[in-house]
Amino acid sequence: MTLKLYFGPGACSFVPHTMLEAAGAPFEAVLVKLHKQENLGPEYRTLNPRGQVPVLVDGDEVITQILAIVSYLDDKFPQCNFLPRAALARTRALETLAWMNNTVHPTFTHVFMPYRFSDDAAAQAAIKRYNAALYRPMLEEIEAMAQQAAQQGRAFLGGANFGPIDAYALTLLRWGGFAGHDPAGFPALWAHVQRLAELPPVARAMARERLQLNVYQPPAA
Amino acid sequence: MTLKLYFGPGACSFVPHTMLEAAGAPFEAVLVKLHKQENLGPEYRTLNPRGQVPVLVDGDEVITQILAIVSYLDDKFPQCNFLPRAALARTRALETLAWMNNTVHPTFTHVFMPYRFSDDAAAQAAIKRYNAALYRPMLEEIEAMAQQAAQQGRAFLGGANFGPIDAYALTLLRWGGFAGHDPAGFPALWAHVQRLAELPPVARAMARERLQLNVYQPPAA
Repeated sequence: MTLKLYFGPGACSFVPHTMLEAAGAPFEAVLVKLHKQENLGPEYRTLNPRGQVPVLVDGDEVITQILAIVSYLDDKFPQCNFLPRAALARTRALETLAWMNNTVHPTFTHVFMPYRFSDDAAAQAAIKRYNAALYRPMLEEIEAMAQQAAQQGRAFLGGANFGPIDAYALTLLRWGGFAGHDPAGFPALWAHVQRLAELPPVARAMARERLQLNVYQPPAA
Repeated sequence: MTLKLYFGPGACSFVPHTMLEAAGAPFEAVLVKLHKQENLGPEYRTLNPRGQVPVLVDGDEVITQILAIVSYLDDKFPQCNFLPRAALARTRALETLAWMNNTVHPTFTHVFMPYRFSDDAAAQAAIKRYNAALYRPMLEEIEAMAQQAAQQGRAFLGGANFGPIDAYALTLLRWGGFAGHDPAGFPALWAHVQRLAELPPVARAMARERLQLNVYQPPAA
């Protein structure tokens, strides 16, 4: 039975997308048009009642939530060493992934989809502005992780191997461009992300999602 | 070396607090007065720069993030079976915990601390109102989990053993009271939570945190 990944271009589904590419296993990538709200339609809701991407389907199993999918793919493809094996190192990886997932990611959601947090137009504008500013120190934390990896001679943020922390970091820095943060302002992270984008599995996922790495647009003079 | 847990009364640190009680290992519980913003002071920031509870200290290791702490305690106390062993069942547990942690929990944060999402007073009021309403269908999802556990004759939400999903469910239903949702409106969950509260480890954690299980106050007539 082929694995199937439901993804939205540029969404956090990019994380398992790159893991599946790195695993080299056959899988079907199913594009969900978030801008047309296909994820909120009845067909998709049958698959995932919460209407979110990513969804991973493996035979009869339907798995949602980045952290659960990451853990599942790590179990399924142990040869990839997506997460460290040792308990403490694994805990550290989960700590970073959980923070990205419950803090950095939703902060961007406030910028990109402020209507999910208020039905009041003025409040939405205030939410968007405030959270775009909150997002910068979060990217600075990831910049510090990239600096530390460089200093320690590690090729990847989570250890010796490409893994979900790298793919999430790429996604979060890319989103930063939409929040008005120039990736060049995070030099170690930006260098890391540009190297990642050239890895064949990451490049294949980016091509399929038609992603431009740098979406930042300087304010008009 | 004694384990040390930094907790805020009624905060999500209740999850590892009950796990430590259930494990029966000696540990020190350190109260962090969130209402006095001790978590944002320089001393606490040395421990956790992000200024959040819980923090688990084990010897030289300082571990943050509920999901990471849960995974660490599960590894440290395998006899407790806090999380299922089988890969798929474990994935399902992580799926629920991740959703509680990245969706239900932050929705309540919008109700309880709307100033974390906007510096505009009118926007804060709009955020609070909107998210209090969003919170109800999330509790209904957890109610459905409790109904299913009851139908399947399972004593706990995550399987045969008390675990982090139960403790998080208790916390989230309790918070519902602050968001204006009567726990009695979620009958299977409320019955489950009341049974949980009588388990000795849970009762000990509640006593130490001085928690009242039902904080709902009906609107004045």
